[in-house]
Parts: sequence; structure tokens; C-alpha cells
Amino acid sequence: MSLPPLSARSHRIQPFHVMALLARARELEARGGDIVHMEIGEPDFPTAGPVRLAGEQALAHGHTGYLPAAGLPALREAIAGHYRSRYGLDVDAGRILITPGASGALVVALAMLADPGRNVLLPDPGYPCNRNFVELVDAVPRAVRVDAGTDYQLTPGLAAEACDDATAAMVIGSPGNPTGTLASAADLQGLAALGRRRHIGLIVDEIYHGLHYGEDPAQAVAHAPDAVVVNSFSKYFGMTGWRLGWMVVPSEWVPVAEKLMQNLFISASTPAQHAALACFSDRALEIFESRREAFRQRRDFLLPALRSLGFHIPGDPAGAFYLYADVSSLCDDSFTLAEDLLERAGVAVTPGLDFERTAPERHLRFAYTTDTDRLAEAVERIRAFFAAGS
Amino acid sequence: MSLPPLSARSHRIQPFHVMALLARARELEARGGDIVHMEIGEPDFPTAGPVRLAGEQALAHGHTGYLPAAGLPALREAIAGHYRSRYGLDVDAGRILITPGASGALVVALAMLADPGRNVLLPDPGYPCNRNFVELVDAVPRAVRVDAGTDYQLTPGLAAEACDDATAAMVIGSPGNPTGTLASAADLQGLAALGRRRHIGLIVDEIYHGLHYGEDPAQAVAHAPDAVVVNSFSKYFGMTGWRLGWMVVPSEWVPVAEKLMQNLFISASTPAQHAALACFSDRALEIFESRREAFRQRRDFLLPALRSLGFHIPGDPAGAFYLYADVSSLCDDSFTLAEDLLERAGVAVTPGLDFERTAPERHLRFAYTTDTDRLAEAVERIRAFFAAGS
Repeated sequence: MSLPPLSARSHRIQPFHVMALLARARELEARGGDIVHMEIGEPDFPTAGPVRLAGEQALAHGHTGYLPAAGLPALREAIAGHYRSRYGLDVDAGRILITPGASGALVVALAMLADPGRNVLLPDPGYPCNRNFVELVDAVPRAVRVDAGTDYQLTPGLAAEACDDATAAMVIGSPGNPTGTLASAADLQGLAALGRRRHIGLIVDEIYHGLHYGEDPAQAVAHAPDAVVVNSFSKYFGMTGWRLGWMVVPSEWVPVAEKLMQNLFISASTPAQHAALACFSDRALEIFESRREAFRQRRDFLLPALRSLGFHIPGDPAGAFYLYADVSSLCDDSFTLAEDLLERAGVAVTPGLDFERTAPERHLRFAYTTDTDRLAEAVERIRAFFAAGS
Repeated sequence: MSLPPLSARSHRIQPFHVMALLARARELEARGGDIVHMEIGEPDFPTAGPVRLAGEQALAHGHTGYLPAAGLPALREAIAGHYRSRYGLDVDAGRILITPGASGALVVALAMLADPGRNVLLPDPGYPCNRNFVELVDAVPRAVRVDAGTDYQLTPGLAAEACDDATAAMVIGSPGNPTGTLASAADLQGLAALGRRRHIGLIVDEIYHGLHYGEDPAQAVAHAPDAVVVNSFSKYFGMTGWRLGWMVVPSEWVPVAEKLMQNLFISASTPAQHAALACFSDRALEIFESRREAFRQRRDFLLPALRSLGFHIPGDPAGAFYLYADVSSLCDDSFTLAEDLLERAGVAVTPGLDFERTAPERHLRFAYTTDTDRLAEAVERIRAFFAAGS
């Protein structure tokens, strides 16, 4: 059998290294092993009752047909209402487009902005799929090293240095994955200004929006009004498997985004859109806030505990549910450490290899997507593992 | 405000012309007008009871988290079981990947096969999104004129003539949209052979699979084993708004498709995948078969009725729920006719402009996605419209 050749991008796009670890973790569990999962970027909380119930009711009422590509008008309004009531921000519902997860929004954003051969600035470390969305449209991911000195955020200075005439866009995350850090208002304003000056698009991924543990973070819709802002019902709103997100685009681009969405998706899931309406009820928001408090408590436990074990975590990550640790004082290679922690301590974490090009071997990501008792168990296991002489 | 430039593909991708007609139809309805909708590519049947109920139960059981990128293993097995029990075909469940609609599958298929600058053969007329999936990855859609002489299907002869060294793939639909015609076993075999000989990928869109009204159509999995076969739960299985489809890929390509899916989608909707399991129960299949019978009756009514009005529809379209009519003996411009039928007769249809480049002004698509009484009403209105002297 002789199959036709695959596209060049098929070779450039890499699978996630954590998948092999995950498969091994499942193998160990199947044999009766007990694994603490800190590798998973998914809250352990199921979809909240009111949202699930709204989904059931939507199905019972037969809401199963296609919706307009831009989304259920009532949901677009509800999101605008949330920006207003929660953050005091006015966002025109007409600029809010409902997408199949933040993933769908990122495809549309990059398809709108990046022609083949142009480059896209991505902070390194960063969300691993972003470089592959860039590869999908045959633009060139350009990793820009960020470190603790800028809270792992792409600053206007770093971006100005890294961009050139071929730069089509910059993609930042706030709160960021894998570091949990936030972009400041000054960063957002500076990147927006750079974008205007150099004709470079700005895409701000806010999919962990709502999951922050200090003051309210700076909002892209306020500080970078020309940015494409990507958001999600997955994390704060707890709807991962429903695959629902949204994007806010400049009003001039709404028709462009809409025609791309018509073609690429037809529309986002109808039952999910009806269910998501219930996310903005007082009862649901109370649940989300209590979960946010639980994440804060986990972070407040895990951060000092990991530091006491020798993991170096600069700053106090203020959002998402990740801690990104420098392990260079503990081992030579974080991938081997991740394997050892899994095999010998029953703790699953994600190696830096999935998040960065610069110093992957020095980093591990811990997700606090499991409860504090299990996190404490993991800390004890790691302590014992190091004590046994790793 | 000065926004950054949009990508070239943003300009190349066209919105659907039917959207303007649809908006106008809604306007007329809002003013109390009565419109017979024959423009919509969505069955009028809601999702069947057993499937809806399975969705509700999935939510009640908390099936709301991410699934593996390739899909729920039980669903992949159920689809393999359906190929076996319904068509007597053995398809390894490991080759079946669950996607967010057929749309998601088409993105993955073209991303796997088509590099920028290479061309992709598309029958003209054909499904309008296909050329835009090709544009997404910056390959070049190459329209190949097909007509009644080949049942509007791309034949091996036409493909051999149209392809060159830059051809990366061919995409065909069977049953096809907008024509409702089927590819023959000989066509599939011949295209597969051409693909092998010229190293060209073959993508067979079977999203209307199951909706055929004569003998069982030739199956791509049987006659073109190296093809990427795209399918959907939307049409025969009645799950449009859930956004769920699948693709069958050569086993060598499973890891490639899987890593693309991990990156681009994370996974397809979890509630939808659990609900879809119920599609293969005897009770659900009975419902689908009775709906298929309803579609057959509608076709059997509408086809002669339209012909008697002077619409030229060659052959007897054997699948999907579309009739594609040549209107050149009735008017000079099908777009104007579509507008007139909407404004003056209250009948909404889709102009050829959305489906073809060669002779769009000569064609209209009628969807029989409304019941026979309404179809009869439409026929009477069109008759009266012509009688009044259009």
C-alpha cells in the first residue's frame, strides 16, 4: 500500500509528551496502582448542577438544531451582561461570537490574521496548542523567551524586540498556562500600542478568566480594545467536555469572523449554548465562586509545600490552576523526573517539554486540579521519593 | 482606529449568499408573512427521543469532562458495529475517529494532506464549505465541472484530466450536496487507483450516508480503502446541533489525525458522544428508517411536481434531501428568481451561486426538509407565480 504524502505541517505538529505519561498512568492504575493526578488541565469539579439541569431541559425542549454561526443571541447578551455586572465593562454583544471551545476561537483568530510565511509571537513557555494553531495556517511560530523577570508574560519591550515586518500577530495568555501569571494593564496597553504602530494583531487568550486569586486582573477588552479576546466556558464555568467558548473581536471584523465560522463550524453546540445561559444565574455564580475559593486554598497549600521540597517557583502565580516549577536544583532532566515521579511515587505531573523550547529540561508543571487531601498525599510521596535518594 | 491587515484567505473566503435570503425570509416572517423553507440543509425532524434521552442521562450522570481526542471508545466500536451490521463491512474501530461535526473532520483531512500552493480537486457544483476548508490551509481549490452526464460526480476520467503534479487531494461527496447523486463503485475504485498512481489523497464526504432511496450506495470504506471517509451524526442520525461526526482514516494515519485533533479540538462534545451511543439501538434505527421513508416520499412527490413546472432535474437523485434544478428555460438568472420566489411567492430556495462557479445563474437547489403538505403548498405557489407572468 502506498499512501499519498502527508502535508509538511503534519510533520511539524507535535503530539503532547504528557500523553505518553498519561497512558502509562492509566496502565499503572489498571494494575491497581494509585496515582495522584496533577498533570491534567481540567478542573476536577463536574459541570455545576444548574448548568447541567439547563442542558437537560434544553434537550427535553428539543433545542437540538443548528444555531446562527455567531451564536445564540441570548447567550451573546448574557456574556455582555457578565462583563458589565462582574467587571463594570461595556462590551457590545454584537462583538461577542460563540465558538466550539476556545480552540475554535483560536483557529478563527489565526486564520483571520496570519498568512503563510508570516510569523506569530508566542511567549515561551506557553500553551502548547498555540504554536500548532499557527502551524495549521502555515505561519511561523516565533517563540519569545519570557521568564520570572516579567512574570512569564510577553511585555511590549520583548515583543518590540522580537517582531519584524513579517510579524502578523502576537498571542498571549492571561492568566497564562503553564505559569498561572497575569498580564498587567500596562502590558496590555503597550502590546496594543505596538500592534497599532506595527500593524500586528493581538490575540489575548483569557480562557482562565475568572480563576484568579488576588485583585481582578487587567481585562483585554478594557486595555486592548482592538485585540481578539478568546475565552471559554471550560475552566471557570466548569463546562470542559461541552466544548464552548467565545471570542470578542473588533466590530469591523465581525462579518469576517462570522463567515469563517459559518464555513468551519456551521455553529457551536446548541445544547451547550442553551446550558451556558444558566452559567450567569446567581446560584451558578455562587458555585463558581466557591470553586474559585477552593482553587485558592489549594494553591495556598501547594505553593509553599513544593517550595519546601526544593522546587523553585518564582513569584506567587495569581491565576489559573497551575504552578510552573524550576527543578534544576533537583535534577538534570525534568522529563526523567516526571517519569520517576510517576513510576516510583505515583504522582503524575507534566514535563516542561510540552510548554517550552528554551529550557524544557528545567521545568515541571503542577496542576492543582485535585483536592487538598490528594495534593497533600502527593507532597508526602514526593518528599519520600527525594528522601529515598532519587 | 487602524486595525492590522487581515489575511489573504479572509478575503478569499466568501459568505453564503443564501444567508442574505434567509435574513430576508425572517424579516418577512416577522411581519406576518408565511414562508415555505426549502433552502435549509437541515432535516426538520428533531433529534430522536432515544438519543435525546441518552443525552439527558449522560448529563445527569455527570458525563461532562474531556474525552480522549480520538473519541469515546464505545462510540468508535458502535460505529464499527454499524458498518458491520448495516452494510456487512469490516472497519477497524481504531481507524474511526470522532470529530466535532463533519466540519472538524474536513479540517483535519485537508490539514493532513494539503500544503500551501498545492491544489485540491472539487466537483463543481459541490458543497460550498469545501473550497473554504481548502482556503483555510492555503491550498488552491480547483473546480472540476461535473454535469448530468456523470450524475454530477467526479469520475476517474475527469479527475485524471484535471489533476497535475501539484494536486494534493480530491474531495467528493456521496450522496452529494447540492445534487443528491451517488458515486458508483467504479468511480470510487477508479479515483482510489488514480490517487495511488499519482500520490493524491482521496477524501469522500459521506455525511448524507444512510439517506438514500434506492439500492445501498457504494461505500468508500469498501471501494477506496485508502480514502479519508468523512461522516456525520447530523443528517441520517438527526443530531445537527450537537455537532458530531466521524472520520475513517488509513491506520498509518491514525496517530497523525489524532495529534491534529488533540491540538485543534481537544475532543468532540462529551454529552453528544454519549447521546450518539443510543443512535445504534433498534428503537432509534427504526425512527431513522421511518424518517428516511418520509424523505423518500417527499422526493417522490417533489421531483415530478417541479418537473411539471418546467424545472429541469436530470436523472433521479438517489440520496440526501436535495434536488438541483436547471432553471435556464424559466429565467435568465437564478439568483433573481430565488429573490422573486421569496418576495412574491413566499418560497425560500438556495441559488446556484452558493454551489458552483460554472453556471450558477442556471441553477437552484430545493431542499425537501419540510413536510409534503408544505412542499405541495410551495409547488402551488410557484405555479401561481409563473402563471401570473414572472
